[in-house]
Amino acid sequence: MLRKKPRIVIVGAGFAGLRAIRQLARVHAEIILIDRNNYHTFVPLLYQVATGFVPPEVVTYPLRKYLRSSNASFIQAEVQKIDFAARTVETQFNNLAYDYLVLATGSQTQFLGVDGAAEYALPMRTLDDAVRIHDRLISNFERATVCQDWERKAQLLTITIIGGGATGVELAGSIRELVEVTLAKDYPAIDPQQVRVILIHSGTRPLQDYPEHLGNYTVKQLRRRGVKVHLQSRVSEVLPGAIKLDDGTLLETATIIWTAGVEANYPQPEGKLDTASKSKIRVEPTLQLSNHPEVYAVGDTALVEHNGQPLLGIAPEALQQGTTVAQNLKRQLRGLSPKPFNYFNKGKAAIIARNSGVAYLFGRIPLQGFFAWLLWLGIHLYYLPGIANRSITLLSWIRDYITRERSLRQLFKHRQVHPQESLTEYAAKELS
Amino acid sequence: MLRKKPRIVIVGAGFAGLRAIRQLARVHAEIILIDRNNYHTFVPLLYQVATGFVPPEVVTYPLRKYLRSSNASFIQAEVQKIDFAARTVETQFNNLAYDYLVLATGSQTQFLGVDGAAEYALPMRTLDDAVRIHDRLISNFERATVCQDWERKAQLLTITIIGGGATGVELAGSIRELVEVTLAKDYPAIDPQQVRVILIHSGTRPLQDYPEHLGNYTVKQLRRRGVKVHLQSRVSEVLPGAIKLDDGTLLETATIIWTAGVEANYPQPEGKLDTASKSKIRVEPTLQLSNHPEVYAVGDTALVEHNGQPLLGIAPEALQQGTTVAQNLKRQLRGLSPKPFNYFNKGKAAIIARNSGVAYLFGRIPLQGFFAWLLWLGIHLYYLPGIANRSITLLSWIRDYITRERSLRQLFKHRQVHPQESLTEYAAKELS
Repeated sequence: MLRKKPRIVIVGAGFAGLRAIRQLARVHAEIILIDRNNYHTFVPLLYQVATGFVPPEVVTYPLRKYLRSSNASFIQAEVQKIDFAARTVETQFNNLAYDYLVLATGSQTQFLGVDGAAEYALPMRTLDDAVRIHDRLISNFERATVCQDWERKAQLLTITIIGGGATGVELAGSIRELVEVTLAKDYPAIDPQQVRVILIHSGTRPLQDYPEHLGNYTVKQLRRRGVKVHLQSRVSEVLPGAIKLDDGTLLETATIIWTAGVEANYPQPEGKLDTASKSKIRVEPTLQLSNHPEVYAVGDTALVEHNGQPLLGIAPEALQQGTTVAQNLKRQLRGLSPKPFNYFNKGKAAIIARNSGVAYLFGRIPLQGFFAWLLWLGIHLYYLPGIANRSITLLSWIRDYITRERSLRQLFKHRQVHPQESLTEYAAKELS
Repeated sequence: MLRKKPRIVIVGAGFAGLRAIRQLARVHAEIILIDRNNYHTFVPLLYQVATGFVPPEVVTYPLRKYLRSSNASFIQAEVQKIDFAARTVETQFNNLAYDYLVLATGSQTQFLGVDGAAEYALPMRTLDDAVRIHDRLISNFERATVCQDWERKAQLLTITIIGGGATGVELAGSIRELVEVTLAKDYPAIDPQQVRVILIHSGTRPLQDYPEHLGNYTVKQLRRRGVKVHLQSRVSEVLPGAIKLDDGTLLETATIIWTAGVEANYPQPEGKLDTASKSKIRVEPTLQLSNHPEVYAVGDTALVEHNGQPLLGIAPEALQQGTTVAQNLKRQLRGLSPKPFNYFNKGKAAIIARNSGVAYLFGRIPLQGFFAWLLWLGIHLYYLPGIANRSITLLSWIRDYITRERSLRQLFKHRQVHPQESLTEYAAKELS
């Protein structure tokens, strides 16, 4: 088959994939983006969806709108097979030949072999996960108000977060605030002191990839705000409505959130693939696959090192890799050889709660407290795609800051998470 | 059982129920609101959710927040039985005794006995319905882009609205605009001329409760904007992906929206109930049930007449009835006899499309065109509960008016409406 233009297929519309497309805007090539969703998800703000700061659509951006200003077309599909030898990707709709392929498919939750975790814990990786957590938090409060059994009520009002990375810390702090103010006002029959928010972390401090004193600051802040932080504690089993710790403790808790691990997530290709831990694909310094210079892997999909250490899987890394892939593709199209990826470490930041965050800038400068919190907000507002999204988010933040409230606690039936049945089933159980 | 305060149970948090609660704020009584949802739905804006103007949460308001400034408590539950003799309502959680009961449970879609309508047509009455319609519209465009079969593609791009009341007219005009601008830009592979939006109405003109010339204006406006209006046409059967008209025509259409009928919706009570057409409960002029002066029925639940004609089921009627119920309850509590409801007809309005609406004010003054459109927007913005909802809606309207776009077309997986499977199933069907 003769095609005029070379065809670049990009799988995944995350930070890396979309950045690559933007940088390829003027290239003489046919570009096809494939994603299972018709929107981009701004992952760093998902915890705010889970805790009622912003509604789901605000942390997303419609891909077809994004692509209007590019030369790329879009297929909403699931890639089911990749054939590196034949240079094709197969979706449920068609078999697509490519000249160049960019795998930017991201990561998925990894339950680290803990029994019952996949069944009974709520992962926190996608928008759907965030919505599910939001609805679980609110509906357990609804259930607690009609619950006569004291033990069951305590279980409904115990929220456990497993994993003390940035997501775990942000969720713990934000859920505690949600409980203290909004839910306390909404549910006069529930004493906020009855509600327990527990963060369980296997290491000696949360945020282990930050300098030690920032981790310690984080623990202090979380505890001051009422989060129970369990360090050097591992979950050995997750049960329906309870977890078992490695010291044998059984903890009754109706909401169990799992933030303890991720692994690369991509369709299994035909033939062998050189992978490292967490299923990450090993790539050349140029981000190409060693045996397939026409295939790139980026972001959470790939093992990329910086100063001998694997990168963490945060947005700036993916964005910069997207730029490098685009530049390297342009070089290949012009017959030049690709250049190695070079990560410029601007830093990272995490929010703990109102007025409190940590940041570690340029891999050198630690920051904690109010300014780290403000920096986090500023950076994420700047990077959030869409003027409307940014305006609504900013207004929500200002309002929530002034009123100390969260605006969102509607339990929508159109969400799979909380069908009418579940409440009735619950009632049947409760009354039996 | 001895209770200090009389207990008023209000079932349904629509316009009538919430207005009654607000008016009862200072009454010496225990007030309990029961609703199956934990939010109020602002029904008149649902068509804007269905057509991508505003997101779902903007047309809702959390009930527990609403109730903070009242003396009412809330139970999120489904009333399953009412016993007028025993004066109890039964939910899945408990059996609740009342001294006074207000039935404000609203209406549900009625399919008028048309075969297949309940199975294959999309109703348009609740927020979930609106979300389902939105997702169906967008996902059929996604499907059409990967569809190779010309006939199937035409079916995917044919949208039929059955029923020419205000909801049908508003949906038809708004969907046509959505197709013409946003979707035309998003889907360069689809010719907007291929897309058909069809409004089917059994009468000689839409909006039959408006003066004749406003109905004729509506037809002219819809047709000018590209909606195919079929008058004096009835649907005899709804099939999967097609409808049959009474003249035998078979119309292939992947989106079938049903707005042709509603009926009162309330839990069946023990014993007999005096009902009229559309299952409406007959009430005294005071809105009380004739045999049960301690029970009120209001809004779409009740048959209420004004100048010898039954009221239509629009928001102002429900709001005014809510006020009357509250006043009558206060009178009963003080040992006085309730007063008859007296409807003050401020009027009604419907939107056709950009810059074009109709209104009929005070039952006397007809209005059409730009000013009717602006009046509709102003009134609904004023009545929409919540400052944030109002701000976001106003900003969305201004942006959409300027850009001629709709902001929302994300297909969220957390919605039951569009699970991943459906796309795959569709593919399987398409490829077979």
